[in-house]
Amino acid sequence: MYAAQYIGNKSFKVVEGHAIAPQEGEVRLNVGYVGICGTDMHIYHGVMDKRVSIPQTIGHEISGVVAEIGKGVNGFAVGEKVVVRPLDWCGDCPTCDAGLTHICQNLKFMGIDTPGAFQSSWTVKARTLHKLPAKVDLKQGALIEPLSVACHDVRRSRLQAGEKAVILGGGPIGQLVAAVAKSVGAEVLVSEPNESRRAFADELGVKSVNPMDTDLAAYVDDWTGTKGADVVFEVSGVLPAIEAMTQIAGRRGRIVMVAIHSTQPPIDLFQFFWKELELLGARVYEAADFDWAIELIASGQIDLTPFISSVSPLADIGNAFASMDGNPQGMKALVECNAQ
Amino acid sequence: MYAAQYIGNKSFKVVEGHAIAPQEGEVRLNVGYVGICGTDMHIYHGVMDKRVSIPQTIGHEISGVVAEIGKGVNGFAVGEKVVVRPLDWCGDCPTCDAGLTHICQNLKFMGIDTPGAFQSSWTVKARTLHKLPAKVDLKQGALIEPLSVACHDVRRSRLQAGEKAVILGGGPIGQLVAAVAKSVGAEVLVSEPNESRRAFADELGVKSVNPMDTDLAAYVDDWTGTKGADVVFEVSGVLPAIEAMTQIAGRRGRIVMVAIHSTQPPIDLFQFFWKELELLGARVYEAADFDWAIELIASGQIDLTPFISSVSPLADIGNAFASMDGNPQGMKALVECNAQ
Repeated sequence: MYAAQYIGNKSFKVVEGHAIAPQEGEVRLNVGYVGICGTDMHIYHGVMDKRVSIPQTIGHEISGVVAEIGKGVNGFAVGEKVVVRPLDWCGDCPTCDAGLTHICQNLKFMGIDTPGAFQSSWTVKARTLHKLPAKVDLKQGALIEPLSVACHDVRRSRLQAGEKAVILGGGPIGQLVAAVAKSVGAEVLVSEPNESRRAFADELGVKSVNPMDTDLAAYVDDWTGTKGADVVFEVSGVLPAIEAMTQIAGRRGRIVMVAIHSTQPPIDLFQFFWKELELLGARVYEAADFDWAIELIASGQIDLTPFISSVSPLADIGNAFASMDGNPQGMKALVECNAQ
Repeated sequence: MYAAQYIGNKSFKVVEGHAIAPQEGEVRLNVGYVGICGTDMHIYHGVMDKRVSIPQTIGHEISGVVAEIGKGVNGFAVGEKVVVRPLDWCGDCPTCDAGLTHICQNLKFMGIDTPGAFQSSWTVKARTLHKLPAKVDLKQGALIEPLSVACHDVRRSRLQAGEKAVILGGGPIGQLVAAVAKSVGAEVLVSEPNESRRAFADELGVKSVNPMDTDLAAYVDDWTGTKGADVVFEVSGVLPAIEAMTQIAGRRGRIVMVAIHSTQPPIDLFQFFWKELELLGARVYEAADFDWAIELIASGQIDLTPFISSVSPLADIGNAFASMDGNPQGMKALVECNAQ
């Protein structure tokens, strides 16, 4: 088997290794496709070198096929298509006790804190697996993980059919949130300065606006008949969106914080009081979000094919990362891991 | 009848006037007691002179007795004790249509935007009235309005029996929130620098801590066995509390923004992501909050007597305000409006 290792300084090394036999409760997968996530790009840029042990195999947006099954694992058969929910929770803390394993107090994220998926063979705990129906293509399967992020965000928002949602930021996650929001019957508006990303939204049948040349607050006021947005998803991570989110949310509006803001931006708390706003933090996903994402793909409600910008063999992983760097046109680059 | 008018510059004038006969849908009250609210103190300090038309009769924490009943009003009898929910909503905006009249897009607050209760006779719309059981003292009745604020805050928080709640700020509203939180079976901690306010909490059987000499985050971590607070009520309006609230809230913790922050303080959004926190804006109250507050008093679950710091006749309203000014010991000063 082959594994790509992040070795720091925007570099990868592809090494030959041995497949790891599954222990009790584990399953070994032949990896199909692995997507490059924004977090992988952060690692590539060295921003997370303190958290990632170099050299490290990263990657966590994965589809694959069951290759070997460890003791005590039931319900899986060799050859079945699966995806991995890349969370390793402790099972012992009060948060796990409360059933919220995705925000476990000792959570390890597979592919960041532990070895990840950019390799041809990956051995994981069976509890992380979700089955992919046989008819679902493994390329689309690699996008189940980011789609589950979007499902989690929409679930946190309690978005209903007929409600109006504004998505601040039209990158891959923003566009996936738009697709999921549309699937529940909401009316959706994406606010995004980049022209090609707005065009991407338009092609998926989602209304978009450029907040650089349009007064977003006035636009939303008009669109909603003065009511304001029922839900705002902040996916951009930029300060003007933090200012906009409290302006465009209507009374009792829910704002879901999808972007990770590592600074502490000023927030208009007066609007929270005046309009009884809600701010909801959202982190990764729960098992139910993976189930929902798989159902959305399997039923054909969402087609992820337009999101796939490129497919590169594992040997070319360095070029795959380099070509995504500063490329707002690209939505999702996949690495084919069994192509060696 | 007599009415106190705020005439600007920390001053009141008590004038003689005529009782206003109730029009259709209105009721005239003989005013019993009116509490001095923090908002009244802001008006007294001239901070709201742009919003308040001078001279203006202010005041909105009121108990009274039905004196005259206008046409088309059913269900009330002369002599009945009542309290006023001092909100005047339009009934026509999308928010009123959604049943959220308390955050109506054209809401007028009685006693700020329209004449208020510091007078011996007040004529109001019947739809603002809640009946007070005959056995409830009118002095306690004047505290139903601030107690309803606390009921609304606790309702917004979805606080459950057995959960742990931290209240940042032990002024009148903070202490009332503590009392309501306790009544639902939660464990409560008040964080308050002022010694007399901590002593007040202690006398009501509520645990308190001084955040100036105790590391609040470490204290809460210990108190909750590392879980963090289920609910945090920010009632203080000070910046250190904004910093503390995201530290002490546990995973999926709910933070209710009770204080009105007119600046835009920096908020630790990373904690919202990491712990999936919720921030809930809260403004005034709904009819259900008044019903709950009256039930809490009528059933004896909460005794508001300790909250009453002083009772002054209407003629002494200037002194009543002056004695509350910069007096953290005082919880609630009442003005007796039929004492002329």
